[in-house]
Amino acid sequence: MVNNIEDIRKALDQAIANGMQVSGGKMADYIPELARFDANYLGASILLTDGQLITSGADPNYIFTLQSVSKLVLLIGLIEEFGASTVFSWIKVKASEQSFESIGRLDQYGTVPSNPLINAGAIALSSRIPGANSDERSDWVNKWVNKLFGEQLQFSEKIFNSEYQHSDRNRSIGYLMKSTDVLIGDVEEALIPYIMLCSFQLNIKQAAYLPMLLANGGVNSNGERVIATATSNQVIAIMATCGLYNESGMHLVRTGLPAKSGVSGLIVAVASGKAGIAVYSPPINSKGTSIRGHAVLEELSASLNWHFANR
Amino acid sequence: MVNNIEDIRKALDQAIANGMQVSGGKMADYIPELARFDANYLGASILLTDGQLITSGADPNYIFTLQSVSKLVLLIGLIEEFGASTVFSWIKVKASEQSFESIGRLDQYGTVPSNPLINAGAIALSSRIPGANSDERSDWVNKWVNKLFGEQLQFSEKIFNSEYQHSDRNRSIGYLMKSTDVLIGDVEEALIPYIMLCSFQLNIKQAAYLPMLLANGGVNSNGERVIATATSNQVIAIMATCGLYNESGMHLVRTGLPAKSGVSGLIVAVASGKAGIAVYSPPINSKGTSIRGHAVLEELSASLNWHFANR
Amino acid sequence: MVNNIEDIRKALDQAIANGMQVSGGKMADYIPELARFDANYLGASILLTDGQLITSGADPNYIFTLQSVSKLVLLIGLIEEFGASTVFSWIKVKASEQSFESIGRLDQYGTVPSNPLINAGAIALSSRIPGANSDERSDWVNKWVNKLFGEQLQFSEKIFNSEYQHSDRNRSIGYLMKSTDVLIGDVEEALIPYIMLCSFQLNIKQAAYLPMLLANGGVNSNGERVIATATSNQVIAIMATCGLYNESGMHLVRTGLPAKSGVSGLIVAVASGKAGIAVYSPPINSKGTSIRGHAVLEELSASLNWHFANR
Amino acid sequence: MVNNIEDIRKALDQAIANGMQVSGGKMADYIPELARFDANYLGASILLTDGQLITSGADPNYIFTLQSVSKLVLLIGLIEEFGASTVFSWIKVKASEQSFESIGRLDQYGTVPSNPLINAGAIALSSRIPGANSDERSDWVNKWVNKLFGEQLQFSEKIFNSEYQHSDRNRSIGYLMKSTDVLIGDVEEALIPYIMLCSFQLNIKQAAYLPMLLANGGVNSNGERVIATATSNQVIAIMATCGLYNESGMHLVRTGLPAKSGVSGLIVAVASGKAGIAVYSPPINSKGTSIRGHAVLEELSASLNWHFANR
Repeated sequence: MVNNIEDIRKALDQAIANGMQVSGGKMADYIPELARFDANYLGASILLTDGQLITSGADPNYIFTLQSVSKLVLLIGLIEEFGASTVFSWIKVKASEQSFESIGRLDQYGTVPSNPLINAGAIALSSRIPGANSDERSDWVNKWVNKLFGEQLQFSEKIFNSEYQHSDRNRSIGYLMKSTDVLIGDVEEALIPYIMLCSFQLNIKQAAYLPMLLANGGVNSNGERVIATATSNQVIAIMATCGLYNESGMHLVRTGLPAKSGVSGLIVAVASGKAGIAVYSPPINSKGTSIRGHAVLEELSASLNWHFANR
Repeated sequence: MVNNIEDIRKALDQAIANGMQVSGGKMADYIPELARFDANYLGASILLTDGQLITSGADPNYIFTLQSVSKLVLLIGLIEEFGASTVFSWIKVKASEQSFESIGRLDQYGTVPSNPLINAGAIALSSRIPGANSDERSDWVNKWVNKLFGEQLQFSEKIFNSEYQHSDRNRSIGYLMKSTDVLIGDVEEALIPYIMLCSFQLNIKQAAYLPMLLANGGVNSNGERVIATATSNQVIAIMATCGLYNESGMHLVRTGLPAKSGVSGLIVAVASGKAGIAVYSPPINSKGTSIRGHAVLEELSASLNWHFANR
Repeated sequence: MVNNIEDIRKALDQAIANGMQVSGGKMADYIPELARFDANYLGASILLTDGQLITSGADPNYIFTLQSVSKLVLLIGLIEEFGASTVFSWIKVKASEQSFESIGRLDQYGTVPSNPLINAGAIALSSRIPGANSDERSDWVNKWVNKLFGEQLQFSEKIFNSEYQHSDRNRSIGYLMKSTDVLIGDVEEALIPYIMLCSFQLNIKQAAYLPMLLANGGVNSNGERVIATATSNQVIAIMATCGLYNESGMHLVRTGLPAKSGVSGLIVAVASGKAGIAVYSPPINSKGTSIRGHAVLEELSASLNWHFANR
Repeated sequence: MVNNIEDIRKALDQAIANGMQVSGGKMADYIPELARFDANYLGASILLTDGQLITSGADPNYIFTLQSVSKLVLLIGLIEEFGASTVFSWIKVKASEQSFESIGRLDQYGTVPSNPLINAGAIALSSRIPGANSDERSDWVNKWVNKLFGEQLQFSEKIFNSEYQHSDRNRSIGYLMKSTDVLIGDVEEALIPYIMLCSFQLNIKQAAYLPMLLANGGVNSNGERVIATATSNQVIAIMATCGLYNESGMHLVRTGLPAKSGVSGLIVAVASGKAGIAVYSPPINSKGTSIRGHAVLEELSASLNWHFANR
């Protein structure tokens, strides 16, 4: 099914217009800095695999933070460098029925995280970032952000500090995993790159690059291979089953678009062979997903016939 | 990506040959009749959307039972007749991290089942089968089995009786849901069609019909629409996140093929736009999935490039 | 520490007077018949081991039902007839941190109930009542009620029927235990005596007999041995750790009186060597314990120095 | 029921002799230093409320560590200084059905520990030790150890260091509680006195002092009041329902002696109005309780009739 670019633009404009009618949700407030963003912002972008970019909604230059969407960067970087079987020996890949920060189930499963897209999984993976010291690990993070967004994103020290000071629950998760050597090395050294990744800033145009790369099998719109197709497919499958915490199942049914959400209000979604999609709107539901973002993706998928099961 | 039929046949033969090398697993024994099947049997079939059928492995006329693959029949029939939003008001659709018969989580979630492909979900749905009496509900079951397999499958009274007599755990699930009106009507009247569905018999050729129908957007190979594309897409999405109980996540990563397993050792899988796949081999792992069946699907997907995220 | 009978009477009158000032709680409503009792009733009795009876509060002839206090009858009868080690091979005796009808934990612990004073434990024990048929088991129940209350209590068929028709959650517990042979025989046949026991009626004077018997080491006030001291001690210890579901711990700290509560609003408590105590007031808290009953026991224990740890 | 001192001595000797026949259990090994103690040691002491001391078994001067028995010190000190209602506003007092280091349930209950005798509860309480700095808190610890054991116990820096380096699970518990302000201040500053308390050393004669004090209502054998009777009663009640983690219920049924165990293999038990008892034998069961210690207490209680419910 081929979509004309004008049809896509219209579908996106319509989805944004309807998304504006959706209300509810709250700004994430567990990190004080997150509460400062514009609750009324709703914007989206679609980056076609051929490089054409469509944006709609509020100012496309408005800057927000990656938050948990960055868990994809960590996962992809490690699979590319260590191989999937090694990465999947560090953590499990179970379809996610749990909240983004469940500790009880972590303990129940022998402290091995259920999947790489919940906090525990990403913190465990963060402890595996190669590097002899903090600077080298920081370089690794910058390198992979650069690769997977096609440019260097800005890092917000303010967000980082705010988040680092409110990380006791993640610190608890870290020490629990350290007690069984699921997290290796020092807990703070694992938390730092984890929180760094959350603290990169970007606008809605930049946000569609990574999902486009996945939609295009790991190749950018210039035809240059950035990551292996196998990596890309594995990550899309993980997004399908775990991308929205305990809402993953219903999201996939409703949109057919494997996605990853973050508490900043960003959702990125993959329409394989077609496009990467990014939507940003800060008010989130109790499960940590942007309410309007979810509505936009649902309408878009329906009007463009982009459900993954479509032939 | 187009596959030549001879390439598919070769890939399937090779996957079966390699699957024969895989050992481990045990016959399901919680229902005595299930223990009688041939533990050495390994066979598979691929039904292309154009109607071409490829089989490989042991005797393609060997007869086994549907077991939990039948949960798809119940789900599809009810979505078609009541609409998805009604069905999803009866049960949740959460990505499945749990075992096939978890009671604890059912209770924790207010007794509303997490998804339609675990026992609790299917039993709750079974209580919604329309019909003024047992016979009418039985007719409904037969009608939908007929529709979704393209022919009337045989019903095994022996399997039914064996299973009915070993259903106390499912009965417990039923009464728990009845205590909160999640299951409506009489528990036994919900269990009967549920177990009936498990007790239909078929061979490996017949087993590929239903997944082919889904792969083809609800249209059979004669071009006749059997179910709506929306239903088909929703069901494939549910299979992607919940089809293999607590193995759903890793299965999707490894194969990229939404699937549904049953403790009989049957797995059906959907390659959208291409084919329905069925594999049968009775020894199952601790999570209720055929060990060899899983291996065959993984190899097949890799060699044919049938991961759903492939463009 | 010896208490003068007049001091006890004053202490009780004062505790009742103060208890009348306590508000809050709701009538149990999950069984329709229970909602019909008098929400304003507050009455208590103390039966000294020498046979002297003190009552205070509302009409001492007001009739209510045993409900879960009857779990003591089942436990005592079976320990007496089968021996403690046999009974403790059927169920566990874990300090109770759970609600009165938790199913999740039952499943987690391999369906063996945590203790005999929660529903699951009592239902499992009920399946062990000796008798070739329903009538014989009913005779067993009547015999032990008679023994442990010193007279035949009236049985309310109305309460029994109301409760039997609202037993689906207990039925669920029963089938779960039957699926692993923790409950033996037929689920309904275990539920019937269990619900029968709940449905006996008595007044506040009669209610103090059983706890007095325990306080007196199994001997009645005429000096006749009714049950073994070992049984009595074991049952008191179980009441201490499990008698008030998930409130057992705080209750023992506050009162020092091992007790058993029922959703009817009755609490019986044991002051070893001194007296049996019964308090009845229907409004219960979220954990199933009479709010005023609890307050009366706390004050009484303090003013009489009846904490079990007192020398 | 009065026991002659010779009868007590005989009963203890007999219980020790029989305890030597009991085998099984393992040395605690999660802290390397704990594995160095003598696995064959079995010794016990009974300190009567009048000050007479009876010992039996191996060398009564053998030195071991307090471990979790020290949780009593923390609890008593804080109740004495802040009052019970304040302490019970910091933590819950639920009968303990859980293991000594459960994290899942902590999270489930909003991170408020179930009781003061599990790790989470004691770590939360440790954060409440008054003191402007580390030295002042250390002084507080020393003061209360001194008070409750009647003399200054030696502190083992070696044990402290070994334990501190293997505290990641407790650190995880600490950060989880800090994330919700259940633990106040710095996690390490709460862990330090907590681990200090575990690291005091004593012999079996010294170990009976604290339980004797409780058995005597807070008064030492010279008749000097050390703590309030109310405190003593509350602590005994907590020991009754939570003293042996998930074995608390069965322990109370079997012995009728409220007790507290530690992974070092020490158990202290209270026979109200009679004596404090201490037993030490390092091999522990899966629940963290000394196997032989438990057997000795059970026999002793039976032969001396020291079940708390005895009149």
